[in-house]
Amino acid sequence: MKLQDIGEFGFIERIGRDCVVRAGDVIKGIGDDCCVFKISGDLAVLLTTDMLVENVHFLLNSITPYELGRKSLAVNISDIAAMGGKPKEAVISIAIPDTVDLPFLDALYEGMKSMAKEFDVNLLGGDTTWSPEHLIINIALVGEAPQNEILFRSGARVGDVIFLTGPVGSSAAGLDITLTGRSFAGQEKLLKAHRDPVPHVKEGRIIAGMGMANSLIDVSDGVAADLDHICADSGLGAVIEEAYLPTTPGFRAYCKQYNQDSRHLSLHVGEDYVLLGTAPPGLTDKLEQALRSEGCEFYPIGSMVSEPGLRLKCSDGSTEPIETRGWDHFK
Amino acid sequence: MKLQDIGEFGFIERIGRDCVVRAGDVIKGIGDDCCVFKISGDLAVLLTTDMLVENVHFLLNSITPYELGRKSLAVNISDIAAMGGKPKEAVISIAIPDTVDLPFLDALYEGMKSMAKEFDVNLLGGDTTWSPEHLIINIALVGEAPQNEILFRSGARVGDVIFLTGPVGSSAAGLDITLTGRSFAGQEKLLKAHRDPVPHVKEGRIIAGMGMANSLIDVSDGVAADLDHICADSGLGAVIEEAYLPTTPGFRAYCKQYNQDSRHLSLHVGEDYVLLGTAPPGLTDKLEQALRSEGCEFYPIGSMVSEPGLRLKCSDGSTEPIETRGWDHFK
Repeated sequence: MKLQDIGEFGFIERIGRDCVVRAGDVIKGIGDDCCVFKISGDLAVLLTTDMLVENVHFLLNSITPYELGRKSLAVNISDIAAMGGKPKEAVISIAIPDTVDLPFLDALYEGMKSMAKEFDVNLLGGDTTWSPEHLIINIALVGEAPQNEILFRSGARVGDVIFLTGPVGSSAAGLDITLTGRSFAGQEKLLKAHRDPVPHVKEGRIIAGMGMANSLIDVSDGVAADLDHICADSGLGAVIEEAYLPTTPGFRAYCKQYNQDSRHLSLHVGEDYVLLGTAPPGLTDKLEQALRSEGCEFYPIGSMVSEPGLRLKCSDGSTEPIETRGWDHFK
Repeated sequence: MKLQDIGEFGFIERIGRDCVVRAGDVIKGIGDDCCVFKISGDLAVLLTTDMLVENVHFLLNSITPYELGRKSLAVNISDIAAMGGKPKEAVISIAIPDTVDLPFLDALYEGMKSMAKEFDVNLLGGDTTWSPEHLIINIALVGEAPQNEILFRSGARVGDVIFLTGPVGSSAAGLDITLTGRSFAGQEKLLKAHRDPVPHVKEGRIIAGMGMANSLIDVSDGVAADLDHICADSGLGAVIEEAYLPTTPGFRAYCKQYNQDSRHLSLHVGEDYVLLGTAPPGLTDKLEQALRSEGCEFYPIGSMVSEPGLRLKCSDGSTEPIETRGWDHFK
């Protein structure tokens, strides 16, 4: 069966199954001019949107459609997690070129639905159209959080401990393996880190709920670039210790085997979708305990300082500035 | 100055000015992982999204960037209007090809901001990326409405009067003039109807607020296709009277001068963005009075019937079925 056979409305009906996993908040799902839902009156509303463009954000031959569906939603869920919020209701816009067939689309939406189900997100509609070239996916996701718990990039203070909620670099190594076609004994975990990242919603809610952190962001552009956002918005600088950067054994083995620059991969590539935050030094023990008691991770990697810029305390004892130029789509 | 010169973050800073027109509800605008805002606790949240693809939804040489910006937001505002809601907070995703320059983008965002200001909508962020080909714009818009006032497509009853809140066909004639390059004495109004439509938010709020209508939709795909949505979702049919279809003198003059099929243009083309609704016959006088007293329009055009399908009572007294196949992006 082809997309042309079932047409736009047949396709919408097809993808519209099993989209609501939390019916209680939904007043109207797919099939009207808008979707309609309820947000608890005492909560603030979070809204994020991400556009994924074929050949810019993904290559059709290096990710399965199921993984692409999961990741498209995961990057939005991660933005909600990075404010300490709970993801709730999503709408999906898609522009479909003739090169993409119905089995691909079925798998893409299956992927989105599996991610949505894992994080209790309703898929409530969107917009479906044709694309002359390139697959385009845009998701807009609404979340909620108590207003006084929301964590911004701008709240970091001098002396704050900088922390991560998981290892970094594995996604970069997975991308490297994908692009180079290298073979590596532990490649599955690295490929999974890149193609099927897990947003840290639980971590974000614990951190925000405890009211102990001062700032939070997710690692999408890389530890350096994302920490630079916190520094810029908080009017501060940061020093991080290379020896403290959490990485996985697989990542380290891959870098060793292929003589890769582990510092570059763990600091400058991104897409790990762990959380990066700052908290006063006196509170980090409690924060770590709270996270670990819930099966989450906590890694202090440095501190916020008043002097602008990012610096790295290298493993050899020297200190050097960190280039913070993250990815720029236009430069 | 070029987009490459200012880069992604320079561009975001540039377009981020004057985006908030209603600061009271905004907790965080552009510049964090999500935007954050408040919705009154007793209101339901409406969410809509629309993706506009170059060469599918618009041609760069037949609309100015300012108009394209206005229309991109207008079509989303119209979806909120079609539920009887009030538009509130928007996020804009854009994928920019190398063929689009900075003055174009400036004008595009000026257009969005002018439309946003007219309808009291905050622009609170989005996503900015590069496109290998074709300009892609996706807007997600949040609105609000009292839950018991929201009007769906599915609420029409047998005997309901079908009404429009403005004339139809002018947008179709404007598109026709654009595509054929014809010249016509009154072309400005027709071109404006197509390139710079005005969403009927005020009309939607009056209709929903009075609690007298049973269903509502906006005319995006054409009176026939959009009425068919109401019929399908309400399990009913409809009869409309050709003589009652409201059109403008300019539209009629254009059709006469160029021997165009006015029935086709007014029923089957769409993009008028007026509202199409149904209400019990005993209440339409009050509804019309309420709308007219606020400077709005009301045109009864037919009635809902139990027999499925759409039929047209033609001006010559005959009755014929209306083909309701609206635009299908994949057929």
